[in-house]
Amino acid sequence: MTKLNVHCQKFQKHLAHLKVDGYWISHIPDLFYLTGYGAEGCWGIFGKKRAALFVPMLAAEQAAALAKGFEIIQLKKLSEVYAMILSCATKAGLKSIGYDPYHTPEAYIRGLRKTSGSKVKWVPLPGATTPLRIKKDSKELNALRGAGHVVVQGFNYIKHIARPGMRECDLAAEFESYIRKHGAIKASFDSIVAAGENAAYPHYITGNRILRKNEMVLCDIGALVDGYCSDLTRTFFLGTISPLGCKVYDTVARAQKLAIQAVKPGVKAAQIDRIARDEIERGGYGPRFIHSTGHGVGVEIHEAPWVGATSQDVLEAGMIITVEPGIYLQGWGGVRIEDTLLVTRTGYEILTK
Amino acid sequence: MTKLNVHCQKFQKHLAHLKVDGYWISHIPDLFYLTGYGAEGCWGIFGKKRAALFVPMLAAEQAAALAKGFEIIQLKKLSEVYAMILSCATKAGLKSIGYDPYHTPEAYIRGLRKTSGSKVKWVPLPGATTPLRIKKDSKELNALRGAGHVVVQGFNYIKHIARPGMRECDLAAEFESYIRKHGAIKASFDSIVAAGENAAYPHYITGNRILRKNEMVLCDIGALVDGYCSDLTRTFFLGTISPLGCKVYDTVARAQKLAIQAVKPGVKAAQIDRIARDEIERGGYGPRFIHSTGHGVGVEIHEAPWVGATSQDVLEAGMIITVEPGIYLQGWGGVRIEDTLLVTRTGYEILTK
Repeated sequence: MTKLNVHCQKFQKHLAHLKVDGYWISHIPDLFYLTGYGAEGCWGIFGKKRAALFVPMLAAEQAAALAKGFEIIQLKKLSEVYAMILSCATKAGLKSIGYDPYHTPEAYIRGLRKTSGSKVKWVPLPGATTPLRIKKDSKELNALRGAGHVVVQGFNYIKHIARPGMRECDLAAEFESYIRKHGAIKASFDSIVAAGENAAYPHYITGNRILRKNEMVLCDIGALVDGYCSDLTRTFFLGTISPLGCKVYDTVARAQKLAIQAVKPGVKAAQIDRIARDEIERGGYGPRFIHSTGHGVGVEIHEAPWVGATSQDVLEAGMIITVEPGIYLQGWGGVRIEDTLLVTRTGYEILTK
Repeated sequence: MTKLNVHCQKFQKHLAHLKVDGYWISHIPDLFYLTGYGAEGCWGIFGKKRAALFVPMLAAEQAAALAKGFEIIQLKKLSEVYAMILSCATKAGLKSIGYDPYHTPEAYIRGLRKTSGSKVKWVPLPGATTPLRIKKDSKELNALRGAGHVVVQGFNYIKHIARPGMRECDLAAEFESYIRKHGAIKASFDSIVAAGENAAYPHYITGNRILRKNEMVLCDIGALVDGYCSDLTRTFFLGTISPLGCKVYDTVARAQKLAIQAVKPGVKAAQIDRIARDEIERGGYGPRFIHSTGHGVGVEIHEAPWVGATSQDVLEAGMIITVEPGIYLQGWGGVRIEDTLLVTRTGYEILTK
């Protein structure tokens, strides 16, 4: 029998800490992390010794090829699914099964509870995979370094070709085309190219607006390599930068630099946020820094640790974070500068360099 | 005060049929359909007269620009969110509020119930938006026709440039780049380009495999125009087609043609599935048609009506469906042919032509 992959083995050991016999997962990034395969409509059940993946018939063969060592069970009608999962759980002797209540639709857990009766206790345990996913192993770091490298190449390319008259979506398309030709499977999220006043929206939805001379272009872009994401934001000016543009840009750049320099194991993530926020407040733009300073990156573009004012996370070697302060002035535009960093034993390594 | 858009107004009228005072939505496609804005972390609450959109601070300004007429409420800490929603609901006099249990994480509805106590009754009502979303109005049809037109252009382009030696992901990148230059905002789902034996996986994850001479290339691709999707599958052979390839292709093509010809108002969706399946069974490949015949398309790439054996849906003018039979032979490859159709008063209009 093929051995289960190392992430799954670690999670199986972790079940003892969670004080349950098994864990049930429908969240696709968790499934991908633990099995090597994750797609819509797939569910996984993990016991201490065995693990099974429930997949729609149309995905069964690819799942079997990618999720090596897992029992692959074809899902049929939704009405039969709960009984199939219960049967699998009781065969494996699972009497208590955890699940993530933030990523499990209420109807599914209700169906599982109803079908199980008193045979299985379903236990809400949020963030069960976080202690594993939050620190990356060497294989993951290879993918993350690759994703960091190609996103920078892609940005350099679009900065080079950007001209007044092009549309935001043209630049986004050129970026995505470039990275796919240079090792990325696709963008790690919908590329944001925001020109002029659109740069005032941190999560702008890229549109048809024309890039104009002497205006800013904010690019928030990422690449997916071997299932892992990168995240990079650069803001540049197409021509001459105005005095206000200069002031805002320099404030953000200083804030980002100071925050990055503080990154090392043992530092609270909230402290990184504080450093960036303090510098932007000193520049007079405190209320216009309208999001947290960063987030973890891995199989998801946003994951733990969280780099914000209320975060309880403490940085450790092997974690990945973004540092991305920004200033947004409605009607004018905005500036954000973001890098993806690995926390190392002595400090940090910038992956988007 | 700006008027709410027509979809929202219809939904507000629909609340009376649902026998609730209001409805709470976290599912992004529903939010986009009803408000004009939908993004991660946004929640909407709809009463018979008022509607509010809860958005993270970083999205507030763009939400206000796009979701005209809605009260925009900035979400703060998750711990405060439930109380904010309750306050909004009680101000509007909502005593019973529905939600979709298949698209609402258990933790959220648990939090809302706990905070509300006896003040609000939360009622699981799956598919509440389906009766509206399932039939498209003229504005939606314009977008869907545009999405259908550009995906066909994009396919013609990549078929023209496809050569042995290119990789699957190169062709996918060329498609996405083309459609973005020709009116699409992006692909409506991850483009599937599956070469040779990979075409045996209906939901193949596009990779680095090289296209080779005389092998099949299965392209399952779509475009997003003004928020609406198209869905198209074509399978072609790079060079000479083998006798087996010919037989499989012709069987699928016959099945698709017969199923399409049966599309008109009053026909059961399950009947369309039956017609395609019968023809593939006659060809001797019944067990290798491992998915349903089609699905609806709109703001989501997969939505009602469902064109499968167990579907209860009956076709009506204004509905959009795909017809996409396929045959999959592991180790060899597969053939699928798919078009997106509008059901018209007298029959159908192929949008991907």
